[in-house]
Amino acid sequence: MTVESFHPPVRTLMGPGPSDVNPRVLEAMGRPTIGHLDPVFVGMMDEMKDLLRYAFQTDYELTMPVSAPGSAGMETCFVNLVEPGDKVVVCQNGVFGGRMKENVERSGGTAIMVEDEWGSAVDLNKVEDALKANPAAQILAFVHAETSTGAISDARALAELAHKYECLVIADTVTSLGGSPLKVSEWGLDAVYSGTQKCLSCTPGLSPVTFSERAVAAVRNRKTPVQSWFMDLNLVLGYWGGSGKRVYHHTAPINALYGLHEALVILHDEGIEQAWERHRVNHLALRAGIEAMGLSFVVDEASRLPQLNAVSIPQGVDDATVRSRLLNEYDLEIGAGLGPMAGKIWRIGLMGYASNRRNVLLCLGALDAVLSDMGAPIHSGVAVGAAMKAYQ
Amino acid sequence: MTVESFHPPVRTLMGPGPSDVNPRVLEAMGRPTIGHLDPVFVGMMDEMKDLLRYAFQTDYELTMPVSAPGSAGMETCFVNLVEPGDKVVVCQNGVFGGRMKENVERSGGTAIMVEDEWGSAVDLNKVEDALKANPAAQILAFVHAETSTGAISDARALAELAHKYECLVIADTVTSLGGSPLKVSEWGLDAVYSGTQKCLSCTPGLSPVTFSERAVAAVRNRKTPVQSWFMDLNLVLGYWGGSGKRVYHHTAPINALYGLHEALVILHDEGIEQAWERHRVNHLALRAGIEAMGLSFVVDEASRLPQLNAVSIPQGVDDATVRSRLLNEYDLEIGAGLGPMAGKIWRIGLMGYASNRRNVLLCLGALDAVLSDMGAPIHSGVAVGAAMKAYQ
Repeated sequence: MTVESFHPPVRTLMGPGPSDVNPRVLEAMGRPTIGHLDPVFVGMMDEMKDLLRYAFQTDYELTMPVSAPGSAGMETCFVNLVEPGDKVVVCQNGVFGGRMKENVERSGGTAIMVEDEWGSAVDLNKVEDALKANPAAQILAFVHAETSTGAISDARALAELAHKYECLVIADTVTSLGGSPLKVSEWGLDAVYSGTQKCLSCTPGLSPVTFSERAVAAVRNRKTPVQSWFMDLNLVLGYWGGSGKRVYHHTAPINALYGLHEALVILHDEGIEQAWERHRVNHLALRAGIEAMGLSFVVDEASRLPQLNAVSIPQGVDDATVRSRLLNEYDLEIGAGLGPMAGKIWRIGLMGYASNRRNVLLCLGALDAVLSDMGAPIHSGVAVGAAMKAYQ
Repeated sequence: MTVESFHPPVRTLMGPGPSDVNPRVLEAMGRPTIGHLDPVFVGMMDEMKDLLRYAFQTDYELTMPVSAPGSAGMETCFVNLVEPGDKVVVCQNGVFGGRMKENVERSGGTAIMVEDEWGSAVDLNKVEDALKANPAAQILAFVHAETSTGAISDARALAELAHKYECLVIADTVTSLGGSPLKVSEWGLDAVYSGTQKCLSCTPGLSPVTFSERAVAAVRNRKTPVQSWFMDLNLVLGYWGGSGKRVYHHTAPINALYGLHEALVILHDEGIEQAWERHRVNHLALRAGIEAMGLSFVVDEASRLPQLNAVSIPQGVDDATVRSRLLNEYDLEIGAGLGPMAGKIWRIGLMGYASNRRNVLLCLGALDAVLSDMGAPIHSGVAVGAAMKAYQ
């Protein structure tokens, strides 16, 4: 059996996440472990909640990281808010809307699906039709930024619609948090989950969530117990809630939380608006290079995420070969397509710490070199220059 | 708002977990993040499974870490194996048996409780009576090493009983793995979960699990879907199962897994029997010191865990004052009692890396000094000497 320490290669992570982690975050994760009920740790938890409120642009009291990856954050929202027999309108325009449907059904609810083409934003008219046709629906669920396609939807308008029809809103902000404008309180999003490994530039493994007072009231007034013990907010809040005595629920992932705290301090130091602007500027440069090569984007300009660029693979070019060559020759990871988009698109992330000029130039240069070498039908040797020009 | 990096104090962790983390593990967690589908990472996953099989002493194919703390490992076992209407015999002799009951009920099953006094081992006769009286029961669930009391139960005999009555076995080995003899395959335990923050000397946040072929068959042949999407092994195995292509399910907590890999390499280098023996020897020294002070153990010698020492608090001594003074004056954390044992016992951990001579002497010396200073009815100044003698 292999019994040697594992030393990973140093990659540049420009896929759909995990994205490049700020070295300050890695260093923080290696600090000495202390107890999960240590008064010093409890003080850190309070700071963490404030820092998360800043990132989410929310004043909701219930704001905390779930001790597991984004998928568990999603499940936390659904198992706490959906009761058997409930109806939930779910918008699907990619992989993660489909996962929401699974969560509704496994919680005993019925999902009323509003489907849009993959790569498009959620269509507000279709959503209003569904809400009108289903007055018993209590929740509208949608993905703010679809990680599988790179399309952003109008979260503010969707929340307005939901409230008009007296629904709570569950929003997936895994890929938007820290990279695209997101104003949870102002927009009235009720139950919001995210991930740490995208635009927060932290390692994967935690899922920040924030719940409005209305959502918390709905959890407290359930007729049936939450089916998950681990994710039951009525219990988790004994540890994370308020700011007084902490009651043991589960052992918090101490060092992962050090990392998230550091990532949030970095975001606060930069400023959230400045982070959004940085993502926009680097996206425009990448876009200039991609288009100069003659490649095209999957998503219309109006719905395009700056942090996740879905690019169509040119005819006759083998997806897997390109991605392996980038990984092996340049230590550069870009993402494959998921589901029906597998083999047809690449997903190029410019998330958090990875959204910088160096990565834009590396990605364009490496892609240009590999595609040219493979004889792909692109304009060679012009991408990097086009990006440089876009920065001016 | 506070926007400064968090620098934890350096504590010695001798509570019920997290325990002291080996510095090699902390260093490993700070290595560069790579993608969760990177071929190099996938190779590390295969090594991790082999290393976990060694730690669990199992040859079960399904052996992997759940991407969340031990409580989620517990829930993974129950939601995958219990279907609505199922009967499960649950042994309770502390906090965690009660949590198992919650898990059975939230999975739609009925828990048939076999209760023993806190601090005692599970009584085999009572379990056999319950299995006889409930021929429809399909599962026997018990805690191998009760973290709330420091008592160990006879897992091998319990598994034999379960199989005699055609039940599968769910075993909690959160505190036993790496610290007390545990032979999953030889004993025939079917679904086993553990934690990383106890005798593996890793940070908290992951839960190693291992499932026998019979348990996997039961999961595959369910009549109803698993209620949790995140914990559904039918889906998780697309990523962790086999050794071929990995299908995305959730984003694995990359850096936490680096840490666990390193912790398992350290355990393998030491040897599992040697680790068990080290825990035994350090426990005997701590015990000599504790008894020389005139303090007594909660658990009978035959059922006493070497890695978790439950000590009765002497009459008139204030629990919280002692623990705060140890923390503030000696940077030493010991654990409080849980539930009905709060205020009555201390839980002194000697787990994994923390099970060493230095910690035994520090703990005895500090406890002696603080209790003497508070005028507690103990024999002062003899504990450390008694421990030193026990090592000879």
